[in-house]
Amino acid sequence: MRLSCLQENLAKGLNIVGRAAASRSTLPITTNVLLATDEGRLKLSATNLEMAVTCWLGAKVEEDGATTVPAKLMTEFVGSLPSDKVDMILTANKTLTLKCGRFEARMTGVDAKDFPPVPRVEGGVTAKVDVSEFKKGVSRVVFAAATDESRPVLTGIDAQFEGSVLTLAAADGFRLAVYKMALAEPVAQKVKAIIPSKTLAEVSRLIADADEAISITVDTQKSQILFKLKNVELVSQLLQGSFPQYSQIIPQSHTTRVVLDVPQFLRAARAAQIFARDGGGIVRLIMTPGSGKTPGRLSITARSEEIGDDQAELDAAVSGEEAKIAFNGKYLLDVLSVLTEDQVALEVTGPSSPGVIRPVGTDNYIHVVMPMFVQW
Amino acid sequence: MRLSCLQENLAKGLNIVGRAAASRSTLPITTNVLLATDEGRLKLSATNLEMAVTCWLGAKVEEDGATTVPAKLMTEFVGSLPSDKVDMILTANKTLTLKCGRFEARMTGVDAKDFPPVPRVEGGVTAKVDVSEFKKGVSRVVFAAATDESRPVLTGIDAQFEGSVLTLAAADGFRLAVYKMALAEPVAQKVKAIIPSKTLAEVSRLIADADEAISITVDTQKSQILFKLKNVELVSQLLQGSFPQYSQIIPQSHTTRVVLDVPQFLRAARAAQIFARDGGGIVRLIMTPGSGKTPGRLSITARSEEIGDDQAELDAAVSGEEAKIAFNGKYLLDVLSVLTEDQVALEVTGPSSPGVIRPVGTDNYIHVVMPMFVQW
Repeated sequence: MRLSCLQENLAKGLNIVGRAAASRSTLPITTNVLLATDEGRLKLSATNLEMAVTCWLGAKVEEDGATTVPAKLMTEFVGSLPSDKVDMILTANKTLTLKCGRFEARMTGVDAKDFPPVPRVEGGVTAKVDVSEFKKGVSRVVFAAATDESRPVLTGIDAQFEGSVLTLAAADGFRLAVYKMALAEPVAQKVKAIIPSKTLAEVSRLIADADEAISITVDTQKSQILFKLKNVELVSQLLQGSFPQYSQIIPQSHTTRVVLDVPQFLRAARAAQIFARDGGGIVRLIMTPGSGKTPGRLSITARSEEIGDDQAELDAAVSGEEAKIAFNGKYLLDVLSVLTEDQVALEVTGPSSPGVIRPVGTDNYIHVVMPMFVQW
Repeated sequence: MRLSCLQENLAKGLNIVGRAAASRSTLPITTNVLLATDEGRLKLSATNLEMAVTCWLGAKVEEDGATTVPAKLMTEFVGSLPSDKVDMILTANKTLTLKCGRFEARMTGVDAKDFPPVPRVEGGVTAKVDVSEFKKGVSRVVFAAATDESRPVLTGIDAQFEGSVLTLAAADGFRLAVYKMALAEPVAQKVKAIIPSKTLAEVSRLIADADEAISITVDTQKSQILFKLKNVELVSQLLQGSFPQYSQIIPQSHTTRVVLDVPQFLRAARAAQIFARDGGGIVRLIMTPGSGKTPGRLSITARSEEIGDDQAELDAAVSGEEAKIAFNGKYLLDVLSVLTEDQVALEVTGPSSPGVIRPVGTDNYIHVVMPMFVQW
């Protein structure tokens, strides 16, 4: 292998694939990054066996070849080089020599033949989504996925492609987040997949300014998923199993609806959580409809036996009956933190039924939080 | 106690003193912050028994009083409040009530009488230093202080006030950093003190845009030191013992002197350290004088048996003989990272004598690094 490329492009590429490399592993070669010539370009790949990221960059290839070197070493070293041309030469004794300006380094490579092959995703169903819509959708569901492995499917995001809509859903037993986004083109057939939430978060991070759309392919066996961006591809295993039928968890009606200003609600929830986290996380909400000239209001309180208590009042448009409900403060903060809308509606049906949170002015996101049972 | 102040000022004050509060302690009250009225202002104090920070802020005091509340809780809660007036009321049952806009919180206080008194530093010798000069000096010595406690005096910074000069010195057995700064006014008598390096770093952090000079007082017993800024005071214990006679460690001559561009030297040291840290930290420098049209040069190399090796060459003005020396890469990086000058001189007298690093164009900073003994 003998090629040259620009330090800037190489550093960028290594940063893209580097996070997919395993940090330590029973299969040491997965801590390496694969460097290979590919039709006149340089291909970089890294994998932790669950997920593989590949990226291509422009290079002047004089001799084809491939090798793998430690991902962290390579990324840091290339990052420390001046912005100049980098020459790469792989010699017969498996040493990769890098030259850049007056820097020269040699790294001991491991044979590319031993690098786990990146699964090919062919056939199946392909969909296309606008990147900003994709990022928005991912940010609104990933935090609601389970982090413990007791029910593995819940650590994933349920993705359903149907017609011209992609529905993402996450649930951890205490809350449910559902986001619907438009597909750029309708899919030929309905397909469902459970995508690891880490995969989706990583894809979202990989989206660069130059990307406009993301192409998503689920293979025919429903075992792998491919995300394709400009010059970057991520292949991930899919989770096997069946995701809970979540639509029946979403309340179909409510007795009280409160419309609130998002930044104010978030500020009050944040203040309450400071007291709540020492007291089991309980944040209490009391909704009082307005009457005559008195506006409706929401009162948010939290108490810890040891340190004290806190109360905040917010003006709110309250329709329906007076109501009270208690939530885990963290869940309330999580959902309010990702909303970009000005106003949000909270819908409840008494203290022991799930509460529903939806941004006002859009109907493609719904968030359901289970209440906490407390003495009132 | 009954007073009101602005949320912004209170939040800023709590952030200033908060870091001095103990995070956990055998004396639980040291995790609290003291709030006390003081001649029409609000005084905030926190201490971890080694160091105490006090700050004063404008307040409308209606009734004098004092209490202590958990520092972390108070800081986070006040930080979450809107930018408005904060009312504080301490009731007979030791509860501190805070009101701000439509927020209201109650915190369980602990009696201010139980709060460790902040030591008074009176008499002794007082010096005044320009804040930017102080910050610069501190940044150039603190990193060279020892972090392990095997010789406690070496965890401190030796400070010597004499005439109109303050000399700061730090040494950890492998390197020595000495910085001389001008005093705004000469001191009446010579005084020496060993200041904990953490104290100096904290004072440096406390310096705000509004500060112009810092006043430093060492008490007559040489047990305490007081740093006075505008509205902020830090009192710290001094380390007892005698600091090594470091002046004899500073080489008085050299056989080779190399003048280098700081950013280039730093970049090459950083690249070398990536390989060096896996191989005992050894970074080798070879200095070759120029001859005729060939400029002098410095070659920096590092090697790890396992991962590979790296070499960088730099043009340099080399005077004297050809020379080689090996340093721990971390020490080289530490000192080069804090220099703000364009050029630096490296002076050596063979591979087994200490190397001297001094910025070019100023004679108030000197850094000595012990060489590593390696096979050449």
